[in-house]
Amino acid sequence: MSYTAPLKDMAFVVKELAGLDQIAQLPGCEDATADTVEAVLEENAKFCSEVVAPLNHAADKEPSFWHDGQVTTSKGFKEAFRAFVEAGWQGVAHPQAYGGQGLPKLVATPCLEMLNASNLSFALVGLLTDGAIEALQTAASDAQKAVYLENLITGKWTGTMNLTEPQAGSDLAAVRSRAEPQADGSYKLFGTKIFITYGEHDMAENIIHLVLARTPDAPPGVKGISLFIVPKFMINADGSLGARNDVHCVSIEHKLGIKASPTAVLQFGDHGGATGYLVGEENRGLEYMFIMMNSARFGVGMQGIGLAERAYQQALAYAKDRVQSRDLAGSAGPVTIIHHPDVRRMLMSMKSQTEAARALAYVGAAISDIAHYHADAEVRKRNLAIYEYLVPIIKGWSTEMSEHVARDGVQVHGGMGFIEETGAAQHYRDAKILTIYEGTTAIQANDLVGRKTVRDGGAVAKALLADVRATQAALAARDHADFAAIARGLAGGADALEAVVDFVVAHAKSDVKAVFAGSVPYLKLAGIVLGGWQMGRAALVAQQKLDAGEADSAFYRAKIGTARFFADHFLSQAAGMATAITTGAAGVLALDEAQF
Amino acid sequence: MSYTAPLKDMAFVVKELAGLDQIAQLPGCEDATADTVEAVLEENAKFCSEVVAPLNHAADKEPSFWHDGQVTTSKGFKEAFRAFVEAGWQGVAHPQAYGGQGLPKLVATPCLEMLNASNLSFALVGLLTDGAIEALQTAASDAQKAVYLENLITGKWTGTMNLTEPQAGSDLAAVRSRAEPQADGSYKLFGTKIFITYGEHDMAENIIHLVLARTPDAPPGVKGISLFIVPKFMINADGSLGARNDVHCVSIEHKLGIKASPTAVLQFGDHGGATGYLVGEENRGLEYMFIMMNSARFGVGMQGIGLAERAYQQALAYAKDRVQSRDLAGSAGPVTIIHHPDVRRMLMSMKSQTEAARALAYVGAAISDIAHYHADAEVRKRNLAIYEYLVPIIKGWSTEMSEHVARDGVQVHGGMGFIEETGAAQHYRDAKILTIYEGTTAIQANDLVGRKTVRDGGAVAKALLADVRATQAALAARDHADFAAIARGLAGGADALEAVVDFVVAHAKSDVKAVFAGSVPYLKLAGIVLGGWQMGRAALVAQQKLDAGEADSAFYRAKIGTARFFADHFLSQAAGMATAITTGAAGVLALDEAQF
Repeated sequence: MSYTAPLKDMAFVVKELAGLDQIAQLPGCEDATADTVEAVLEENAKFCSEVVAPLNHAADKEPSFWHDGQVTTSKGFKEAFRAFVEAGWQGVAHPQAYGGQGLPKLVATPCLEMLNASNLSFALVGLLTDGAIEALQTAASDAQKAVYLENLITGKWTGTMNLTEPQAGSDLAAVRSRAEPQADGSYKLFGTKIFITYGEHDMAENIIHLVLARTPDAPPGVKGISLFIVPKFMINADGSLGARNDVHCVSIEHKLGIKASPTAVLQFGDHGGATGYLVGEENRGLEYMFIMMNSARFGVGMQGIGLAERAYQQALAYAKDRVQSRDLAGSAGPVTIIHHPDVRRMLMSMKSQTEAARALAYVGAAISDIAHYHADAEVRKRNLAIYEYLVPIIKGWSTEMSEHVARDGVQVHGGMGFIEETGAAQHYRDAKILTIYEGTTAIQANDLVGRKTVRDGGAVAKALLADVRATQAALAARDHADFAAIARGLAGGADALEAVVDFVVAHAKSDVKAVFAGSVPYLKLAGIVLGGWQMGRAALVAQQKLDAGEADSAFYRAKIGTARFFADHFLSQAAGMATAITTGAAGVLALDEAQF
Repeated sequence: MSYTAPLKDMAFVVKELAGLDQIAQLPGCEDATADTVEAVLEENAKFCSEVVAPLNHAADKEPSFWHDGQVTTSKGFKEAFRAFVEAGWQGVAHPQAYGGQGLPKLVATPCLEMLNASNLSFALVGLLTDGAIEALQTAASDAQKAVYLENLITGKWTGTMNLTEPQAGSDLAAVRSRAEPQADGSYKLFGTKIFITYGEHDMAENIIHLVLARTPDAPPGVKGISLFIVPKFMINADGSLGARNDVHCVSIEHKLGIKASPTAVLQFGDHGGATGYLVGEENRGLEYMFIMMNSARFGVGMQGIGLAERAYQQALAYAKDRVQSRDLAGSAGPVTIIHHPDVRRMLMSMKSQTEAARALAYVGAAISDIAHYHADAEVRKRNLAIYEYLVPIIKGWSTEMSEHVARDGVQVHGGMGFIEETGAAQHYRDAKILTIYEGTTAIQANDLVGRKTVRDGGAVAKALLADVRATQAALAARDHADFAAIARGLAGGADALEAVVDFVVAHAKSDVKAVFAGSVPYLKLAGIVLGGWQMGRAALVAQQKLDAGEADSAFYRAKIGTARFFADHFLSQAAGMATAITTGAAGVLALDEAQF
């Protein structure tokens, strides 16, 4: 059940596919030299695998628990979090001015993968805090930044994200928590929030809740929501902690997975009102929260990739160890099960999907860095649009993929996978939250269709497809069966995705339900094609390295074989998926409600 | 969380697709008149939904537990099992001579679905007992039949299946439990068996273990395994229970799902030897156990279908109740989530797969009845071959399908699905065993490839494909968009399956690993094509009913819409699956073990 960070593949993707050298040339990213990044990743890998990963299974068995308003986290979490923040890992990508390391997202992203691979439940406290930091950095006043940012970045305090209410779910228009203005400029908040990750815990001295609520005269719907800071403990002028604020954890959920991560029901204002402070302007809360959500959505995508890697490693170790049945091609006695073709098929499926999703996400991180740091505003704008197109895919596809990988991880174990002691089942349970929180896959797909495809008439999607086709042409130019197979897969994938983008753009107004009936399949198709594109790029680089006679030829040959697997097994499905999307709405919408 | 048996769809499939009228004309099946069958299914539905289903969720929360060798089952299980056997439900398909009802498998099959939909953990005790009954009926001596059969059929005792040992897993060649012959003709058994479902419990007065073990001079491998009866309590000459036998439950497993079903580790012979009785001839144990396994494999397929139905019903109820967000086409306020296209896509996916798998399984049951009861030996033989081709598909595809359906069931619930109290998560956990026990999907797929396809050169598969193409032609002859779409899907499906069968037959000897690298995808493809075939047949019948002006037109129109959904969303994937199977082996086998 141990975890070894896949540093070789991470370095390959960071350097060869995501272009670390170009990122390090951006203004503000100069520290991200190859040497520094290598050292950071190695150090992070060591910390995650030695300190955080060993807590994962035990914490699942003895999760956090609630008693009388307090939450006690699993054994070792408190100490591990102290070590985590003291080593500076909370602040990898945050500003140096507030105690962070100021490294690009491309460097923070593998760190995020390693932390989540090690321990999904543990990693969540940092993930939410990251989101809070980004929202405050963008929307808070300088005075607020001075109070909160450094304390969050250094992990003295942690952050939460309070959106969901029992009656509203994903529909933020239905939020009804109230914020009443007070004479001193503060607000009193009242309401119930559910599904608040690390809404209460014992790992930091204060918790800074970012809360969506309505002021008395706010318009209805999402345009009447404001964002408030509600600290668990009030903060005195000298920075010391004051009285307990009127926000209380009344229970935590009994969940299928990520059991060590407390999911709180928070009650605001039952004893006179929780003191809160407006962030930015009134009624712009949703806009600010989206900053946090975009950060968190990318982060949840990384959770999927980290979890998939962990499940893969566990299945691989079992497959190399477990002896059962003879080799199909003949053997003297029983062999390890990695010799059996179906076990190998599952392992390759796990490996290839994880690598494809990793490559796409890291490339996305680099694009985000260009969008933030590039000197040219036009370049920033263009890259921001690409990044925003990719976020729902990175979140949605990587997490859907992780469910399948975790499932195959159990399957490789056979009967032992169903026994909780083995640990494979935990990944299967943990994975299921990833396609739900921070917006279900359907919500990601709505975003992909509406804001990211229809709004620009498919322009960004088409621009990406042109890049896919360029890679496809380079693959086809190689005289080799593997490259021909990858090129064939990618050609079919690009055709399928283009057909779907055209369908979405053409019918978004005339037949909105037909378009949204295929939104999740469109998202998955985009993930497969763009992930397959990255695998195709990876195969080309690997062949260049082999041609140049570089060491570690086994790694490069494996990369080409893995890319071929992905093409033959996943890109091959693209045409059928496009058919389901472009012809499948009639069936989706065939029944009246009463006919179900 | 209630369960309502889908009696309308069951009756439709039993009568219109599986041909109850023809089955009732077989010698020995005369009791299975339409009226009798309707009454049996209604009574069974009432019992399952009122007595068994309400225990499901509570039993998951408070599962069976072990103490000092004894297992106490979940609250209500003991009483429900008494009521179950007293009503005669254990014996639906078993001989009247031993207290059964002697009804055809086609009638027992919907009963099995209902019981499993109600409570997978509870149903397992009967499923294993069914297998023991069939094995004894085929292989035991008359004296043994007289002692055991009636007591098993009436549920006074229950049966188990003892194959797996820690070192052997699915590889029965590695079984090493020993059976030493005694002077009185009995044997003393020694060894450890794991994963023994209901290997110990408090629901019946005796447990009859059927155990695989080796006699002293047995040849190695699977040809040296014999089958033994090892009762928990010895049976006196007058039928009363005697001394406790030397078989003991040393622990039960802590599992991901089906928690209420005790999974025992059984220790044989730690106190001098467990008394056992040889069944049939020495060294033919595996052959006899296969009788039990084939019965159990079909039964596990029904578990998948039952679970899928239950998960679908729960998701549907939630989708019709939960109000969230406006209708995409515009609405005054938020609507129930069944209005949202992606929720509807998931519901249709769940519904259509469940109906397709049900139709295929019930048709398989009817074919099994013909194989058993038909007067003409040639007809029996032909149908037995078809049934045996279908068993791994019914087991493998229905259970793989149930994992996806249970997953979508959680997804429809959003965040609430991840909370254990909701109950959707239990189905997700429970489903995961179904693709593992009674042979993993890979083992089903090995059977499908080896014994069921290669051995006869694809003859049975091709015969089925001819029937598929006949249905396809009938669909294409209908001048209607839905039928055209179903016909198109089925044509693509038949082409894909035919290409794969040809590939399997052509390469089984020359490239065995390439063939088995695609075995599970072949099994899934066969499930989709044959399930789609049944949906196509269903659509044709439904249209005939509509053309004839029959009542309940909503049901028939829904059936056509559901068949169309299945074609557009699943049959459309067939061509890509065939590509993955016929070209995908290079990627599966690309890496050396060290490259992983």
